[in-house]
Amino acid sequence: MKLSDHPTRLEFDKSRKEIKKENKQLSKDIIELQRKLYAQKEKSLLVIFQGVDASGKDSALRDVFREINPAGCHVFSFKKPTEKEASHDFLWRVHHVCPAKGMIHIFNRSHYEDILVPKVEGYLPDDVIDERFEMMNDFERMLTKNGTTILKFYLHLSKDRQKEKLMKRVNRHDKHYKHSDGDWEVRKKWDQYMEVYEEIFERCNEVPWHIIPSDDNKEKANIIAKIVIEAMEQMDLSFPPLKSKLFTPEYEN
Amino acid sequence: MKLSDHPTRLEFDKSRKEIKKENKQLSKDIIELQRKLYAQKEKSLLVIFQGVDASGKDSALRDVFREINPAGCHVFSFKKPTEKEASHDFLWRVHHVCPAKGMIHIFNRSHYEDILVPKVEGYLPDDVIDERFEMMNDFERMLTKNGTTILKFYLHLSKDRQKEKLMKRVNRHDKHYKHSDGDWEVRKKWDQYMEVYEEIFERCNEVPWHIIPSDDNKEKANIIAKIVIEAMEQMDLSFPPLKSKLFTPEYEN
Repeated sequence: MKLSDHPTRLEFDKSRKEIKKENKQLSKDIIELQRKLYAQKEKSLLVIFQGVDASGKDSALRDVFREINPAGCHVFSFKKPTEKEASHDFLWRVHHVCPAKGMIHIFNRSHYEDILVPKVEGYLPDDVIDERFEMMNDFERMLTKNGTTILKFYLHLSKDRQKEKLMKRVNRHDKHYKHSDGDWEVRKKWDQYMEVYEEIFERCNEVPWHIIPSDDNKEKANIIAKIVIEAMEQMDLSFPPLKSKLFTPEYEN
Repeated sequence: MKLSDHPTRLEFDKSRKEIKKENKQLSKDIIELQRKLYAQKEKSLLVIFQGVDASGKDSALRDVFREINPAGCHVFSFKKPTEKEASHDFLWRVHHVCPAKGMIHIFNRSHYEDILVPKVEGYLPDDVIDERFEMMNDFERMLTKNGTTILKFYLHLSKDRQKEKLMKRVNRHDKHYKHSDGDWEVRKKWDQYMEVYEEIFERCNEVPWHIIPSDDNKEKANIIAKIVIEAMEQMDLSFPPLKSKLFTPEYEN
């Protein structure tokens, strides 16, 4: 598997305006499915976004889950572990914020950082990393068996487009807060990160990865939303019947 | 203070269509303010919704915070305390989910239930309840002094309109999941709940309560959104400057 064989932009036969319009409709479809998920309280959805800095994880979750009921959808970002988190196994803090029945949780970065960063930076021995690959598969299998649908998206950005987007953070006053010198340091190790990602896609593919062309935000959202809808349609969601001792069935119409 | 002196519906000089359109614009204004709050990471906003069953707490938060970046906004519902929560003081679980700097947290019900329910049901002695009133004031003062703007909304619903809305849950299959026989039991104690609410508004008014006419969902959202915007405009929010050792000021334009 070579990431360089995958495009970072697709050819769409629609205009930008048509794509934006379609995206709005797709979001509405997701909201309808989410209402049933939330009402039924039997299944849950976990959406994982991975990708290099500025690959548009924030914009993806905003565009795809636009207007969703915030009571049924939580977003979690994983930064450097706190001292307390680091004193547990690496999946502890992740498991803690997995979705309850009825909920959609979105991970902006995830447990995959716990392979990516130590492997590129070389601060964990190979056998520990190898074990983590296995633990990830076991962990995701366990969640799946317990009713959680997991969707894993890699936002595939070209190196040139990353530079453009990182420079926006330097040049636009309303983007300054997103700038970090550290992102430019990480960028120097681009090829090493791509190699570890390729290994992840091969070894942690029991729950499949979706490689999303991400050079354009609206097209990216379009592709992701369709995958989310397809997955949710397979979850067998429906509104539950009335549970009441006061009201007899003739009230139901 | 008598709740019966407050209207559950206002006279609007706008059509329903105009109100809906204005609500969309108000939500966009809130998103712009939220972007600055999130970028600046100095202040936070805590929005508390209280009200009887079916007063539209869910719909309020959905309409007012429509399209907000879910990464910057979390909703918390407070149900009956778990065994672990009950083994702490009543503010422990509430404090735990107060907003970090940059965040908006919305409470669907709140610590006020810890006065309401025990007072109406009579399972706590008066002196314990009296202490809770004081603790609430102290707690909210502490949060305010630490940079959290607190907005407290009571969604004021008429008893007739509650019946209509509760009956929808019985009659519409996509609302069945919201039905609970218990809500009809609580409704029998309507007057007692109103009395305790009136006492709360008088005794816990250091952070003021907003009594929102709530018989109509769109009008309710309109009134709340304007209060949220006014409060956020007073928070002195702005995008922070570039923090970088790599990029010199001439890059900023």
